[in-house]
Amino acid sequence: MSCAPLYEQKLERFRTLLREIEYLKHTLNATLYWDKMTHMPEKGLAYRSEVMSFLGARLYERFESAELRQLVDDLDGRTENTVEVNAMLRQVRNGSIYISKIPQAEYSAYISLIANAEQVWERARQENSFSMFAPELEKIVAAFQSFAQYWGYEEDPYDALMSFYEPGTTVREMDRLANELREFIVPLVQAVSTCSKKSAAPAPDAFFLPTDEQRRLSHAVLETIGFDFSAGRLDEGPHPTMLSACPGDVRILTTYTPKDFRSGFFNTLHEGGMGLYEQDIAPRLLGTLLDEPASFATEVAEARLYENIIGRSAGFWYHFFPRMKELCPSLAIPDWETMFRCVNQVTPTPIRNDADELTYLLHILIRYELEKDLIHGRLSVRDLPERWRQKYTSYLGIDPPSDREGVLQDIQWAAGYMGYFPGYLTANLMAAQFAAAMERSLGPLQQLLAAGRFDAIHGWLAEHVHCSGATYLPGELVRQATGEPLRTTYFINYLRNKYSEVYQLKPQ
Amino acid sequence: MSCAPLYEQKLERFRTLLREIEYLKHTLNATLYWDKMTHMPEKGLAYRSEVMSFLGARLYERFESAELRQLVDDLDGRTENTVEVNAMLRQVRNGSIYISKIPQAEYSAYISLIANAEQVWERARQENSFSMFAPELEKIVAAFQSFAQYWGYEEDPYDALMSFYEPGTTVREMDRLANELREFIVPLVQAVSTCSKKSAAPAPDAFFLPTDEQRRLSHAVLETIGFDFSAGRLDEGPHPTMLSACPGDVRILTTYTPKDFRSGFFNTLHEGGMGLYEQDIAPRLLGTLLDEPASFATEVAEARLYENIIGRSAGFWYHFFPRMKELCPSLAIPDWETMFRCVNQVTPTPIRNDADELTYLLHILIRYELEKDLIHGRLSVRDLPERWRQKYTSYLGIDPPSDREGVLQDIQWAAGYMGYFPGYLTANLMAAQFAAAMERSLGPLQQLLAAGRFDAIHGWLAEHVHCSGATYLPGELVRQATGEPLRTTYFINYLRNKYSEVYQLKPQ
Repeated sequence: MSCAPLYEQKLERFRTLLREIEYLKHTLNATLYWDKMTHMPEKGLAYRSEVMSFLGARLYERFESAELRQLVDDLDGRTENTVEVNAMLRQVRNGSIYISKIPQAEYSAYISLIANAEQVWERARQENSFSMFAPELEKIVAAFQSFAQYWGYEEDPYDALMSFYEPGTTVREMDRLANELREFIVPLVQAVSTCSKKSAAPAPDAFFLPTDEQRRLSHAVLETIGFDFSAGRLDEGPHPTMLSACPGDVRILTTYTPKDFRSGFFNTLHEGGMGLYEQDIAPRLLGTLLDEPASFATEVAEARLYENIIGRSAGFWYHFFPRMKELCPSLAIPDWETMFRCVNQVTPTPIRNDADELTYLLHILIRYELEKDLIHGRLSVRDLPERWRQKYTSYLGIDPPSDREGVLQDIQWAAGYMGYFPGYLTANLMAAQFAAAMERSLGPLQQLLAAGRFDAIHGWLAEHVHCSGATYLPGELVRQATGEPLRTTYFINYLRNKYSEVYQLKPQ
Repeated sequence: MSCAPLYEQKLERFRTLLREIEYLKHTLNATLYWDKMTHMPEKGLAYRSEVMSFLGARLYERFESAELRQLVDDLDGRTENTVEVNAMLRQVRNGSIYISKIPQAEYSAYISLIANAEQVWERARQENSFSMFAPELEKIVAAFQSFAQYWGYEEDPYDALMSFYEPGTTVREMDRLANELREFIVPLVQAVSTCSKKSAAPAPDAFFLPTDEQRRLSHAVLETIGFDFSAGRLDEGPHPTMLSACPGDVRILTTYTPKDFRSGFFNTLHEGGMGLYEQDIAPRLLGTLLDEPASFATEVAEARLYENIIGRSAGFWYHFFPRMKELCPSLAIPDWETMFRCVNQVTPTPIRNDADELTYLLHILIRYELEKDLIHGRLSVRDLPERWRQKYTSYLGIDPPSDREGVLQDIQWAAGYMGYFPGYLTANLMAAQFAAAMERSLGPLQQLLAAGRFDAIHGWLAEHVHCSGATYLPGELVRQATGEPLRTTYFINYLRNKYSEVYQLKPQ
């Protein structure tokens, strides 16, 4: 009937299928999930779970349909393809390859394993019994050793697992970055931990702030960084997260702890950085599977950039402190300099989720090294708790008092997140490298912040990082935005400057 | 493969298809719509509309699928069918018959006509120009005259339109009920309007109540009548409504007007009556298309029962007034007797939405009579405004000052609601007949209310009206719950008692 050439027809149909896949994906992952987290009455849970399974099955069905597969094969490698069309094809392949390469029976067994493992982990943690969890973890490690073979890799089976989260990541490269970071951070933590300034920290009750003041503060800081409230919301949820139904509907959930406002404030900034990313994605990418961040680490990079590089900086507090004082009459911190020190305290702790900006990276490094050894078979699950304690002692100078505060603290392994943690290293490096590139273009970040030029910062990130969504692979995006591949230099420089400033209090 | 007999297999597949249709229906009509009304940021609208069209198309596709049609044909009339299975088959037939009987081209033309007519009506009302809207209304009347022929009827084409909302309703029966009501209500309104007690009404500012006190009040009255907040919510929305995603997730939206708390309070009770109905539907009906009220009028009956028969009664205020006083320190009404009078003022007005309980029925009667005449072709659209004014003068003693406050006030005709208004008559009759049957079983309603026995009232309604959902046709349900067909007697008795009590203040 139509006179359009076959290529155009196929492309049009391909676009339609992806648009429809996204309708289901966004409804499920953003709107229904948000409602479940925030407003759904408890007796609605059972039916909501059925609805979500049903929509999830429809989503999977469309993603794995013969028609879509055929279109991908037909369009693959065509010279007429634009950069975006090639990226769309890649998204479909990446989205289905990981499941479709695993034999059906093995995948079903894995799903049951994980469903059970999370519950076993929960009980094991409560009872501080690693031996209770060990058999499950052994099966999970074996499953991922097997998956790595199905997924394929060039040099190292762990490459396959990391690439699930960050396409193209290799152990060879990650080891190099990790070693450079460890060699810098471990001595810095030791130096800072013994530094006399530490004892000058304010009393713990200095961080109390009533919830309604914290709400105003979170709203104000999102407005300050440029979050568009006509295209998004801020609410409270069971844990901090960000859910995007489209660039015009981006919802942040945060949590408030009255006894320490820093927790809620930095959670909001963390989710806010990711929220800006989602709001900035070019409208034309909606419905193409490219209307999402380039990768997990790229999104976390923006979270870390706003939470740490911006939110824990002297320039930010010089500018923002008067506004906070105005919004929060109960605030006990007297001036921006004190605030700057208070949000940069370094206190090694056995728990990753309680860690400060600097020591957090060591928690990640430890997980990376242990996971890699487990997958390689160089470390047995039985020996894991002992190796965990050794590394915590050696890197952080801490001997975890129990497995509950050690190897049992994270849900990730029980939930099947293998190869996930190194993304946090990548994210921090990206954040610092983006900030350095921005400085080359706009001038010193601290001056921009002190002058309240959040629009310039946001504008640079929108243009160079956010607007292209998932069109480029994270490595390409870093190269385009910063002119070079990912390096540790910028992050190390950033940490060196920050902590010499905090612990020696040199004038800005 | 399976050894189940063919009938069982077909029934199982039929159940699966209905369950899946409901997942889409509830997601679309309850959860996504609720979110759009309450929390969605404005820039999310365009994409949300796309998502909702997509899901709506999938719902339609499933409802009209050849497989479902074949199953209905195969299962229809089988002796093994339970009452519920027959009701499920009826729901599918009723749900698709109305659209599928209209030729495709004519249905598409109607959809475009309605989309345009609502906008024309909006402008016509603003500019008080009936002649602007008349051409659209003529086309709508012609469309429904034609639809009545497609849908079929035994005696009167208007039967077909009413049956769309209330299966089995006939003009013959409705005329009889309407005449009995009109003959009773018109003289009662005249008597009450000239009654001297009217002038004893409190000053208009006596009804002011701050929004936060109204919120507490609405929450408390829902709790009082037995609304389960672990299976539902109360929020504010652009207009009062009730949305049910399943019996465990029933959400009421209400509105508050600080200058008159009666508006928000009775809106909440109205929606609350419907909310109880939804929460009480037997869990086994979820996924069968029977997990909804027996009809539009049956649902409105429960709304009217709680809003009017309960919420505007002496017994209710005797019990609830102290609680209201406690919750609303700003309340200016001094005692329950005054409150009882204040919520039963009769003041004829040209606007249906502003009408009191008694005169509301006359607004409905007028619409019923005019609609019927339009469909019969006995009244031309050109002559409608004049006939409207005549009826308002004759029934309510009011000459509407303009068409904006007359024939142009309702959106319903522009939106294609033809045959809809008579459901309000039916609903009021049902409500009074249910209340009378309940009294035969539990004793005088005013005594139950005065003693705060809301659980007994709710329990009776749950058992006799709510729990069976849409298993029975509304006529059957009325007969089962009350032992007789729908009559005007109970409603007329109710009104007679109420208004003699209010306007002569006989002791309870």
